[in-house]
Amino acid sequence: MLNTEFIAKLQQVVGAENVSTNQADLICYSYDATQKQFLPDVVVHPSSVEEISAIMKLANETGIPVFPRGAGSGFTGGSLPVGGGIVLVTTRLDKILEIDEENLVATVEPGLVTEDFQKAVEKVGLFYPPDPASLKFSTLGGNVAECAGGPRCVKYGVTKDYILGLEIVTPTGDIIKTGGPTMKGVVGYDLTKLICGSEGTLAIITKIIVKLLPKPEAKKTMLVMFDSIDGAAQAVSDIIRNKIIPTTLEFMDGRTVDCVRQATDLEVPDTANAVLIIEVDGDKEFLDKQASRIAEITKPLGVVETRIAETPEESEALWQIRRSVSASLRKVNPDKFNEDICVPRSKVPEMIRKIDKIADKYQIPIVNFGHAGDGNIHVNVMIDSKVEGEQEKADQAIEEVFKGALELGGTMSGEHGVGIMKAPYIPLELKDVAVDYMKTIKKALDPKNILNPGKIFPSDV
Amino acid sequence: MLNTEFIAKLQQVVGAENVSTNQADLICYSYDATQKQFLPDVVVHPSSVEEISAIMKLANETGIPVFPRGAGSGFTGGSLPVGGGIVLVTTRLDKILEIDEENLVATVEPGLVTEDFQKAVEKVGLFYPPDPASLKFSTLGGNVAECAGGPRCVKYGVTKDYILGLEIVTPTGDIIKTGGPTMKGVVGYDLTKLICGSEGTLAIITKIIVKLLPKPEAKKTMLVMFDSIDGAAQAVSDIIRNKIIPTTLEFMDGRTVDCVRQATDLEVPDTANAVLIIEVDGDKEFLDKQASRIAEITKPLGVVETRIAETPEESEALWQIRRSVSASLRKVNPDKFNEDICVPRSKVPEMIRKIDKIADKYQIPIVNFGHAGDGNIHVNVMIDSKVEGEQEKADQAIEEVFKGALELGGTMSGEHGVGIMKAPYIPLELKDVAVDYMKTIKKALDPKNILNPGKIFPSDV
Repeated sequence: MLNTEFIAKLQQVVGAENVSTNQADLICYSYDATQKQFLPDVVVHPSSVEEISAIMKLANETGIPVFPRGAGSGFTGGSLPVGGGIVLVTTRLDKILEIDEENLVATVEPGLVTEDFQKAVEKVGLFYPPDPASLKFSTLGGNVAECAGGPRCVKYGVTKDYILGLEIVTPTGDIIKTGGPTMKGVVGYDLTKLICGSEGTLAIITKIIVKLLPKPEAKKTMLVMFDSIDGAAQAVSDIIRNKIIPTTLEFMDGRTVDCVRQATDLEVPDTANAVLIIEVDGDKEFLDKQASRIAEITKPLGVVETRIAETPEESEALWQIRRSVSASLRKVNPDKFNEDICVPRSKVPEMIRKIDKIADKYQIPIVNFGHAGDGNIHVNVMIDSKVEGEQEKADQAIEEVFKGALELGGTMSGEHGVGIMKAPYIPLELKDVAVDYMKTIKKALDPKNILNPGKIFPSDV
Repeated sequence: MLNTEFIAKLQQVVGAENVSTNQADLICYSYDATQKQFLPDVVVHPSSVEEISAIMKLANETGIPVFPRGAGSGFTGGSLPVGGGIVLVTTRLDKILEIDEENLVATVEPGLVTEDFQKAVEKVGLFYPPDPASLKFSTLGGNVAECAGGPRCVKYGVTKDYILGLEIVTPTGDIIKTGGPTMKGVVGYDLTKLICGSEGTLAIITKIIVKLLPKPEAKKTMLVMFDSIDGAAQAVSDIIRNKIIPTTLEFMDGRTVDCVRQATDLEVPDTANAVLIIEVDGDKEFLDKQASRIAEITKPLGVVETRIAETPEESEALWQIRRSVSASLRKVNPDKFNEDICVPRSKVPEMIRKIDKIADKYQIPIVNFGHAGDGNIHVNVMIDSKVEGEQEKADQAIEEVFKGALELGGTMSGEHGVGIMKAPYIPLELKDVAVDYMKTIKKALDPKNILNPGKIFPSDV
């Protein structure tokens, strides 16, 4: 419980109408996509970098933790106010400050919703590629903090690759500009990339300078069904080795295909045990050539059926199979734990086999789909947590999945981050000396440990 | 002067034959491409990460500074042993440890020469795009430490964009792995990107995990001469807006063209006041289409002449004009100060005009060429330093050039770094609070300030 004097100071900074301590509001800002809940003491809605700086200075004086938050759509609890404190919501800073059409650079505020930004730049013929599944509601500030990914990353890279500079408020309340609107820049340490993916533990992002691309002229979608995951994985390698980098190379494993087959009336042949949805983009004429080349490359790899969309409607129909997955899974079991391991591309089939074995061992359904082009597998552990013992089985299965990914030279997370959900597993992936090096940075920049404490580092949780 | 006991300890670590204190050796490792000279006390040539770790631990015990060095080809003094100490040369760690052809990932040691690596991966149909001008002798460790660029960056990005992970030795001698061989990874802070471009002040790089691409099928070179720099700059914007991202978009300004005209017998029409060398790469058939489209786009922009290479020999002939620049400049004046400012692409003409004014003001030749595609201008201030007052004029001119770039939203350095040469100018570009934030990181990770001290931060020099 914060004292009224402190609340009054917050009100002076952002205005009384932007400070809330009533229970309904606190509950609204107590959870994210993990469904974990931690009640904050107060929620503030600042509207400027100066206000955020002032809040951080107040927090430093009193040692009260601050938890920055965008849309709260994270999968790892990065914005949850563990232990209570101030939830600082950035959604009032939601403006596009500039789209520089000549230099293909935009400057935006962190509370801007990703899709709104994408639509705005597409209107002027430009393109912001990162496309996390949450793009309809997630904010760019959150995307930067977590270094969000998405299907298009195989060709275009992740959020970090598009961030040229930032304005940030440090844990002690200083306002700093990092990077700038130029395509290159090597003056001083790359604070931009350090902050990107630091999950709100090193700074609050208040402005983002984004690199854009020209919008590709056209795209072409195809769906290829294989009789095995090995064929699908080989196809991914072979396509890339043939100098074609598709925009997306999405895969669904056999168990996912089964779910879709059972839950929908979409046409999926019985012999299909893996599906790739492949999209290429660029020059219109050239796409037809690429699509036939892909069909040719994949043909000897156990293809059951190939569908190539000729119209946007047909493309939409192909994506329907992928889009039906989430709803199909809910019919398997009500509770989903969605992990996002990443392994070297060629190790995807071996990883899927490991996961199948883990699923058999614990007798819980685990279905896998995701971004085959960069080896980023979404592992969905489906349980009914009301059934006694299921949660424990899920926890054990997830730990084994992480260990399996690490054995193959992979990582626990390709795009979701660590937050509080994966913090306990950090010692599996990072040696103590690496964690200490990171903690040294955190401690130096946030001596009172008030900015989003308890995240990433296991012993702080 | 280091005592013999310390030298003996170094000898125990790396073998007596890999420790040198004789004057000839010390002189060899006292300079880099800046021509500044600082004599080290000792030069060591370790051959493993364990040896490097042991050296750092010894250095920490005694507080003796360590200066990591690759080929010493840097333009800003980043490897110079200012104040004396240990020069630690990484050139014995020069192996390619693995080229994973399936996953398009290589693991290499830091002392490997950039071009040797490029040739090795091209042999198996792969491609490492970053191409600093020094690639025939610079090392990959140095490229990573400085975040090297090059002409191909406009399409492919800089060194940082290809570094997936590192093995590093910290200032205190710990060995840490950062990142890994996966295309995505968000577990913990992005130490890989923090180290990349930190100019050897935060860690010694001992292993590098590199992302590769499939080698483009073909390339096509064209040279377009314009009657003004404005036409050339407009061409750059228009080409990109027309959804063509060339591999290179190199430009030469009027003064550079003059130098080439006077010093060589290459055919350059009198009315040509700016030159663009444009290269596109990718699918063979598609390149012809792109080249004609570029010719069409540039046509209304004051084009004096367009040459399109049809064979590799013709391509080489077109590049000849660009390659003749260095030798041509030497005829203007013996001493060259090569700066590498970067401005938003559209500001290149305004920047060139600013530089022309500065050249007129100080009555010294300044010629400009570089990477127009990303606004990275190589500003060559040509003087005869034996003439009294010329050096001072050059210093003042360079400071004005930096200020001019910053006024246009640019940076002092696109790819060369800060080192000792630009450290005095840091306060022009970075606010104190940003420098303090960076220094806080440096101090926390290198409490005794022994790893490459005196670099980047102005007050340390």
